[in-house]
Amino acid sequence: MMPTTVSIFEVGARDGLQNEVAVTTQAKLQLIADLAASGLTRIEAGSFVSPKWVPQMADSADIFTQMPRVKGVTYSALTPNLKGFELALASGADEVAIFGAASESFSQKNINCSIDESIERFIPLMQIAKQHSIPVRGYVSCVLGCPYEGHIEVNEVARVSEILYKMGCYEISLGDTIGVGTPVNARRMVEAVAKVVPVEKLALHFHDTYGQALANIFACLDMGIATFDASVAGLGGCPYAKGASGNLATEDLVYMLHGMGIETGIDLNKLATAGNNISQIIGRKSASKVANALA
Amino acid sequence: MMPTTVSIFEVGARDGLQNEVAVTTQAKLQLIADLAASGLTRIEAGSFVSPKWVPQMADSADIFTQMPRVKGVTYSALTPNLKGFELALASGADEVAIFGAASESFSQKNINCSIDESIERFIPLMQIAKQHSIPVRGYVSCVLGCPYEGHIEVNEVARVSEILYKMGCYEISLGDTIGVGTPVNARRMVEAVAKVVPVEKLALHFHDTYGQALANIFACLDMGIATFDASVAGLGGCPYAKGASGNLATEDLVYMLHGMGIETGIDLNKLATAGNNISQIIGRKSASKVANALA
Repeated sequence: MMPTTVSIFEVGARDGLQNEVAVTTQAKLQLIADLAASGLTRIEAGSFVSPKWVPQMADSADIFTQMPRVKGVTYSALTPNLKGFELALASGADEVAIFGAASESFSQKNINCSIDESIERFIPLMQIAKQHSIPVRGYVSCVLGCPYEGHIEVNEVARVSEILYKMGCYEISLGDTIGVGTPVNARRMVEAVAKVVPVEKLALHFHDTYGQALANIFACLDMGIATFDASVAGLGGCPYAKGASGNLATEDLVYMLHGMGIETGIDLNKLATAGNNISQIIGRKSASKVANALA
Repeated sequence: MMPTTVSIFEVGARDGLQNEVAVTTQAKLQLIADLAASGLTRIEAGSFVSPKWVPQMADSADIFTQMPRVKGVTYSALTPNLKGFELALASGADEVAIFGAASESFSQKNINCSIDESIERFIPLMQIAKQHSIPVRGYVSCVLGCPYEGHIEVNEVARVSEILYKMGCYEISLGDTIGVGTPVNARRMVEAVAKVVPVEKLALHFHDTYGQALANIFACLDMGIATFDASVAGLGGCPYAKGASGNLATEDLVYMLHGMGIETGIDLNKLATAGNNISQIIGRKSASKVANALA
């Protein structure tokens, strides 16, 4: 049975823009306002990470303090550590996200520590988030493959997901970081994770680097998952392959869901316009096929 | 049950290039040789249509007479009428294709006659093809939507498919000409057609204008269909929307199938190289996400 309603977690303003040329705070504020106006209710708006690592996100505090809030919309921030969490809290983030990799090599190369160490470091953050009643989302990366290791065991994805869930993450977003997955593998992975985390607490964050994201999502739609991450205009190229796609375009996902009678609460035309506007600002065509076809 | 092997019908050199800027005969010959070298065994190599309508295909007779034939590869031609068929026959085409629309308005606007009239006109062609033992493939267009009518009834798709099959077409290729379909509709359409044409005689020709082609194919893979049309590098933009995608990129399809353990006999790297070479000639980036990720 497919869901009748799907929740879309929009990552364009964070996961998307952090992999694009930097845009002004004003342009981000406009994007976030446009996204909310299109009907999106879950918007990742920034990241409280060192500006040395991710200069594109240096203005996240300004974003959170300056953006007009739309009632019913949750504005989320990525917080890599306690310091980031405290900044997010001070800036008024409604919820935050932490992360762990399902690949040991990816964890080592990316953040210079083991998977388990990286997750342990989030324990104080989880405690303070709980005190402040701030919901925490957990991202797991490399769930269908790793740029360094290639194949990733589904049991490892399940193990990391379970740890994050038991630590208190309200939802686990399973990321195919390099977009290498195909439908059968995607189903197998979800099956394994759903054994240790309730399936309704899972989200899929599939990248479209190899054009597989929608097929993978469709393959998993009847498994009880009803939350998907996507990025308007496909913002966020793939850092591992110059010129290749990264995030799945939200417009393309919404088109598929609406075409199957699944509700999202989103106005597709408004969403495509939001994506076209930010694409113009970063100086390239929208990576959404739907947006280009509608234009 | 998904098939263990899939047959890919490569349309890039015809359906693809007829919707791109014209390339030289030499470039086409190289493309066709590269496609065969990648392991493709069914290659649509040209169209015997009036050069006034489709100037990009004016050299199809030269293509068929000059191209080196690879053993085991079938080289096909589109033939809109008896004159075209005779030219194809004289040029040595191994098989030909005819077509009908599932939309009355599309038929009227495209070829200025009704669906039934357009199909009746193929009767003499079918007779002569039979005399010469030339297999005829049947394309049905607009199976999931029409640029003029919008929604198309699945019963009409089934009706036109059945007529072409009963006329002697050995395979019916169901075309989502404008790429508007989504997975549930695709399944419903195939279900309807499979009631009147044996499912193993059906092929799917899904365009990727809205990014849905792979999800639609995956949705139909367990229904008994094991033949899919695709176009290397996604050659063939969408004539109804400037800058939008048309054909599904063969590389992206092959990647999905191989990822699920389904054999195609194709060397993906060689195929991507063939696509990158012709893309360079027509002056744009390959429209295959896989090709761009591998590059």
